[in-house]
Amino acid sequence: MLIDLHDLLAKYADTRKRTMALAEPLSDEDCCVQSMPDASPIKWHMAHTTWFFETFILERYEPAFRPYHFAFRILFNSYYNGIGEKYPRPQRGLLTRPSLAEIKAYRRNVDERIAEVLPHLLRTQFAADIAALVELGMQHEKQHQELMLTDVKNLLSMNPLNPAYSQAPLQQHAQAMPMRWHAFDAAIVEIGHAGEGFCFDNEMPRHRQFVEQFQIASRLVTNGEYLSFIEAGGYAAPSLWLSDGWDWIKTNQFAYPIYWQRLETEWHEFTLHGLQPLDLHRPATHISFFEADAYARWAQARLPTEAEWERAALGTEEGSPSNELHPSAAVSAGQNGLAQLFGAVWQWTASSYAPYPGYVAAEGAIGEYNGKFMVNQYVLRGSSCATPPRHARITYRNFFPAGARWQFSGIRLARS
Amino acid sequence: MLIDLHDLLAKYADTRKRTMALAEPLSDEDCCVQSMPDASPIKWHMAHTTWFFETFILERYEPAFRPYHFAFRILFNSYYNGIGEKYPRPQRGLLTRPSLAEIKAYRRNVDERIAEVLPHLLRTQFAADIAALVELGMQHEKQHQELMLTDVKNLLSMNPLNPAYSQAPLQQHAQAMPMRWHAFDAAIVEIGHAGEGFCFDNEMPRHRQFVEQFQIASRLVTNGEYLSFIEAGGYAAPSLWLSDGWDWIKTNQFAYPIYWQRLETEWHEFTLHGLQPLDLHRPATHISFFEADAYARWAQARLPTEAEWERAALGTEEGSPSNELHPSAAVSAGQNGLAQLFGAVWQWTASSYAPYPGYVAAEGAIGEYNGKFMVNQYVLRGSSCATPPRHARITYRNFFPAGARWQFSGIRLARS
Amino acid sequence: MLIDLHDLLAKYADTRKRTMALAEPLSDEDCCVQSMPDASPIKWHMAHTTWFFETFILERYEPAFRPYHFAFRILFNSYYNGIGEKYPRPQRGLLTRPSLAEIKAYRRNVDERIAEVLPHLLRTQFAADIAALVELGMQHEKQHQELMLTDVKNLLSMNPLNPAYSQAPLQQHAQAMPMRWHAFDAAIVEIGHAGEGFCFDNEMPRHRQFVEQFQIASRLVTNGEYLSFIEAGGYAAPSLWLSDGWDWIKTNQFAYPIYWQRLETEWHEFTLHGLQPLDLHRPATHISFFEADAYARWAQARLPTEAEWERAALGTEEGSPSNELHPSAAVSAGQNGLAQLFGAVWQWTASSYAPYPGYVAAEGAIGEYNGKFMVNQYVLRGSSCATPPRHARITYRNFFPAGARWQFSGIRLARS
Amino acid sequence: MLIDLHDLLAKYADTRKRTMALAEPLSDEDCCVQSMPDASPIKWHMAHTTWFFETFILERYEPAFRPYHFAFRILFNSYYNGIGEKYPRPQRGLLTRPSLAEIKAYRRNVDERIAEVLPHLLRTQFAADIAALVELGMQHEKQHQELMLTDVKNLLSMNPLNPAYSQAPLQQHAQAMPMRWHAFDAAIVEIGHAGEGFCFDNEMPRHRQFVEQFQIASRLVTNGEYLSFIEAGGYAAPSLWLSDGWDWIKTNQFAYPIYWQRLETEWHEFTLHGLQPLDLHRPATHISFFEADAYARWAQARLPTEAEWERAALGTEEGSPSNELHPSAAVSAGQNGLAQLFGAVWQWTASSYAPYPGYVAAEGAIGEYNGKFMVNQYVLRGSSCATPPRHARITYRNFFPAGARWQFSGIRLARS
Repeated sequence: MLIDLHDLLAKYADTRKRTMALAEPLSDEDCCVQSMPDASPIKWHMAHTTWFFETFILERYEPAFRPYHFAFRILFNSYYNGIGEKYPRPQRGLLTRPSLAEIKAYRRNVDERIAEVLPHLLRTQFAADIAALVELGMQHEKQHQELMLTDVKNLLSMNPLNPAYSQAPLQQHAQAMPMRWHAFDAAIVEIGHAGEGFCFDNEMPRHRQFVEQFQIASRLVTNGEYLSFIEAGGYAAPSLWLSDGWDWIKTNQFAYPIYWQRLETEWHEFTLHGLQPLDLHRPATHISFFEADAYARWAQARLPTEAEWERAALGTEEGSPSNELHPSAAVSAGQNGLAQLFGAVWQWTASSYAPYPGYVAAEGAIGEYNGKFMVNQYVLRGSSCATPPRHARITYRNFFPAGARWQFSGIRLARS
Repeated sequence: MLIDLHDLLAKYADTRKRTMALAEPLSDEDCCVQSMPDASPIKWHMAHTTWFFETFILERYEPAFRPYHFAFRILFNSYYNGIGEKYPRPQRGLLTRPSLAEIKAYRRNVDERIAEVLPHLLRTQFAADIAALVELGMQHEKQHQELMLTDVKNLLSMNPLNPAYSQAPLQQHAQAMPMRWHAFDAAIVEIGHAGEGFCFDNEMPRHRQFVEQFQIASRLVTNGEYLSFIEAGGYAAPSLWLSDGWDWIKTNQFAYPIYWQRLETEWHEFTLHGLQPLDLHRPATHISFFEADAYARWAQARLPTEAEWERAALGTEEGSPSNELHPSAAVSAGQNGLAQLFGAVWQWTASSYAPYPGYVAAEGAIGEYNGKFMVNQYVLRGSSCATPPRHARITYRNFFPAGARWQFSGIRLARS
Repeated sequence: MLIDLHDLLAKYADTRKRTMALAEPLSDEDCCVQSMPDASPIKWHMAHTTWFFETFILERYEPAFRPYHFAFRILFNSYYNGIGEKYPRPQRGLLTRPSLAEIKAYRRNVDERIAEVLPHLLRTQFAADIAALVELGMQHEKQHQELMLTDVKNLLSMNPLNPAYSQAPLQQHAQAMPMRWHAFDAAIVEIGHAGEGFCFDNEMPRHRQFVEQFQIASRLVTNGEYLSFIEAGGYAAPSLWLSDGWDWIKTNQFAYPIYWQRLETEWHEFTLHGLQPLDLHRPATHISFFEADAYARWAQARLPTEAEWERAALGTEEGSPSNELHPSAAVSAGQNGLAQLFGAVWQWTASSYAPYPGYVAAEGAIGEYNGKFMVNQYVLRGSSCATPPRHARITYRNFFPAGARWQFSGIRLARS
Repeated sequence: MLIDLHDLLAKYADTRKRTMALAEPLSDEDCCVQSMPDASPIKWHMAHTTWFFETFILERYEPAFRPYHFAFRILFNSYYNGIGEKYPRPQRGLLTRPSLAEIKAYRRNVDERIAEVLPHLLRTQFAADIAALVELGMQHEKQHQELMLTDVKNLLSMNPLNPAYSQAPLQQHAQAMPMRWHAFDAAIVEIGHAGEGFCFDNEMPRHRQFVEQFQIASRLVTNGEYLSFIEAGGYAAPSLWLSDGWDWIKTNQFAYPIYWQRLETEWHEFTLHGLQPLDLHRPATHISFFEADAYARWAQARLPTEAEWERAALGTEEGSPSNELHPSAAVSAGQNGLAQLFGAVWQWTASSYAPYPGYVAAEGAIGEYNGKFMVNQYVLRGSSCATPPRHARITYRNFFPAGARWQFSGIRLARS
């Protein structure tokens, strides 16, 4: 394999620059605080993605490697037990030091060293491995770019001042197209990644599955539709909920999506563009698996399996990204009749996150990337308005626990 | 369908009698106490299984029905939200009243009314429905018979006196046969229940799945093999564990199976026959999904999917039950080369508990039986030494959360 | 000191018999279950009080002592760290074995050995020490007799069947006398036990305190008065509550005393005589320190200090016990103008439980009786309807945390 | 009373300036984060002390008052239920907005308005009330100045980089003087504030107490002495601990003071001057009541009551403050033979925090200042190295729960 050094360095620089740009609208304070154990501080994301390159490339391949700072190796390790000690996740927000400025300096240092070392390394026998690690590091950083947006949204949502991350106004009054069912026959289908481009290990190996006939919805469930579910008493009807979901809403006293607020009589939604009146045509977002499953049951439908979703999405590619950090209404469908497969909200599937037949995790710490999370999580497909450009693909497997609400996650219905 | 009244009444009487027999070795106190929220008091099982017949048969079909006791309708409802209020599960052990004697009287009363009403009902247009409900009630009671044994084992295990449920001695010195791999080719297979006999709704509909080639172990993992895993540092090696599993053992400080005790230098196991030296040839039991998964990774294998298990078990039937309430060593295999499919310990599969394609839950409260638990649980196949006779079949889907340890659950390995 | 053996043995027998009598109305199941960590099973009380005599008398002084059962030494130790290992308090209810019958046998065995050994021991040089230990053991057992009643009341209260401990009817329609203030001048007073009779170590040494002038209420706060506080919004007014008390009622969603129930429009109270309409003339009982303090503030008064209480009670003795296990209305006052000092409900004081000046705990495990609880508890004075006869005295210091509600505790007001 | 306007304004300006100076060494991030629910962010302290002046002076007395920011009235209310809604205390660290700069602007605004309005107000009939409120606001702010230091110390202590708040070096090698006992006779003494100067309401009314004879230590317990307690197995001997204290160290696995660290074989202490070798001559600090009580029992002594402390301290005044933010060794005693009464560490007393006889809280929200915390807390006397100058006095009553460890609190022994 011939590796294009200039292309790789350009992509690397782009990825790294985008992370910095995402932090632009935020103060040092915004970048330091952690709103809940599931979320991380912006600053931590900036450092951890840098730690990844330092640990998996520089430490292995840089001649005369010395860590930028010994303590950073512990502070910015996330979950790689193979690497050694970790700083406790729920305490990431306590790290007022190193400062944001120091972390930016850390980023610059690693970027410079990567730029210096890469031309040499790509002429060695390890070139392919190294290029793959750089690619993995960039994809990893893009995942954290999405988390930066969802984590800071969660933080800002807890502030009674309702601060807006983006000052850009949201587009008004786009009308959602009607929902249609698209039917597929029973078939043996091939699922999983094939071909040249990058994919994560959990998308492989490509393998056969028998998929029964099914129908899938042409667009996502809208806020208006979800509001009907609420108004019909959806959160008060145990028969609509999985038993654990029912306990979850009752224990937490949940009766609507996490970022909805009722101000006097009007529903509003906290967004990265500040508090907004609820737009009934945009897709419902920040929906948990439990809520998605209950809604589907109420709508006499169900969630698609990941094989169904992948089959229905066949041939689709992510479109050009919206300028908004909030999912848009579906105004028209793609060639296959399906709208909003990408770029609006991640779509919960009925599939528990599990290894594909024949899945083998990579050796060493890199192998901790995906496989060890394959329990008690559910797969989401597609991508969201917060997903970086050129990151999504139809075989991509995102995953979160059934109660996760702080991601841009929503509902596409299916039925048998 | 022609229903044999005498056969049905005889089966009913047998089932009900067996429940009483299981409580025979226990005192009133043993039958009243609840050792943890997952477990229920013996007395509660006796009353709840009776409540099931009273609620789903007598209340619907008995002329001039009056509840035996108004409060029992709440006290002995388990999780049927459709029926109304429930008594909080973790407080079941506080119900010193009604006494065990009163619950026995309740059982007798319902049994008499069932015996009286059934001959008439089976001559009505509802005969088939009623017979199906009686059958379901008996199968339901058999499930609780197994829970009575696992729940009382948990209770007695917490007593420093190590009391034995059964005074019968355990057989000594049976040698486990060597473990062999049995290979299967890739194929489309039919999975799920077909034919005449009873099954639970979650075993249906029978449907096609594509199963890649795989191998499955001829017998279960033994205590000796599991001990090797422990001695090799299995509980100290994060790379062997799912991330949630690692948190689980570290938080709870687990380093061996729940009922193992080390007395000075010798390992022992608390059993329903009292505290016993650990028999290395018997299968490891009371293993959680997390532990089973970690063991399998250590053994360079994996857990089978439920489709693989069902395919491998094809044509097998449960054998004659052992007299012991503890799983026996595998001394010989069945015709298909596989030992211990039934009657030793339930076998964890890699499959998350999910509806089969086309699954539809029954209408009304009966529909709460299975479907609403289909999240964050894993399927176990086979049966255990505590399973009542004539209850198991190859399509049977048992399910528990990944951290459940108080069931007779163990490990059969597979590999791709 | 001359010790009257026959008198001592008679008292011992009486005390031990009374414990058995208290368990008379209860089933084996009632005696086994633990309703919350603060409470203990009846059976445990029966065994622990026996363990006290076995450990502190037989083990020290019986020739050729052998423990009745080795495991009992751990199972029935309460909090005496000096004695060795303890069984975890919240798990006392899991001990279905030893059975109630076995514990009765244990009691008989220790009683026989005490009766056999005491005549000899009282002729030795240790006679005084031994007689003191027997006395302490009897007083200890009497304390547990009161706890047996409050603990079983708590257990029965959690049962939707509202079972009555006592079948005797409660007296109706006694009218509470009006509340009057009794005034005392400032003075140096002597506080604490003096003289011959038994007292606990925390009642000593007798010492001087300067007590400012104060007034104290002639009787306890009634249910009717407490209901006025509730109806005036007492549980919704933060200004009436200590900060911790306010958090406590809000976190636990408390809005009335623990055993009150509102059935449709009528207030009822769960009692040891079953569920009863709330008698407005009887004293409010099962009141926590937080509630007592808030009520007093609302009533423009305060709780008395323990020195004030003891001064006001000077010269009073406990009267003859009521036959009811529920506090009676104050119909007339004693010579000093104060009613209900004894035999109704314990009276919270404003005094934190602390050592008297010069207090020294006993050596060894017996020294763990009182002193080590002297933090974060408040003193109650008097006695209750559940206190055994001949147990109370004006220097007696009972103590519980500010949130304790399951004791017979109520309110006597004071003001400066 | 004649009020000196210039003097009052000068004191006001000094107090306000000192708060700003304390935040000087800290970054915006340091000022935003909350390390635990007991602590508050520096920024919050800066805003809350400003809110106090705005709420209790400007809102009441400024003509045409308008709040600086409507949301600040909720965000920066601490515990004054009388004022209205409060922002949840454990979430104070989530307020990345308003920024530190905005809070500084808020401070400036209120300071300007106070300076403008005060000359007029002091010529009105409310002059005395207003001057008293300004004084209270300044004393309140000084209390928060001490908390700023203890809270930021707690935050920095959780950072593996061990950052120093102060870059000034600590003085080395001062030798602690020997400990001597000072004896006092039994007497009726007057306790509480008298005279002209400011005091908090909880220091009044001055009243009589009878104090038995006692002895008190000439200096505080040193690190060296506390280390002896540790090395003698103090944290492993239940007989030394209050029962709740023992549970507390066992549950939390505490075996030494909160900021001690053992690096290889050497004990170190985290200080506001960074991580330092443990100085055996300086007083033990950050000791909880539970630890202080256990140490005293081990040392065959006890903690003094607050009356004993106040009596012993009679005639003492706070000296000139040290430049260090860490308590110094006692090198010499004052006239009365006692060293370290002020300026080193607060001294736990055996006295539960309770109202003095005749105590009456102020009317309205200001009345929430002290009285409502009078439960389950223990009084500390003296002052610490973090106490602002001209804040301490011998009648001052500080108070914290028995498990509080993040204050500069230590041990002065007494005995009867």
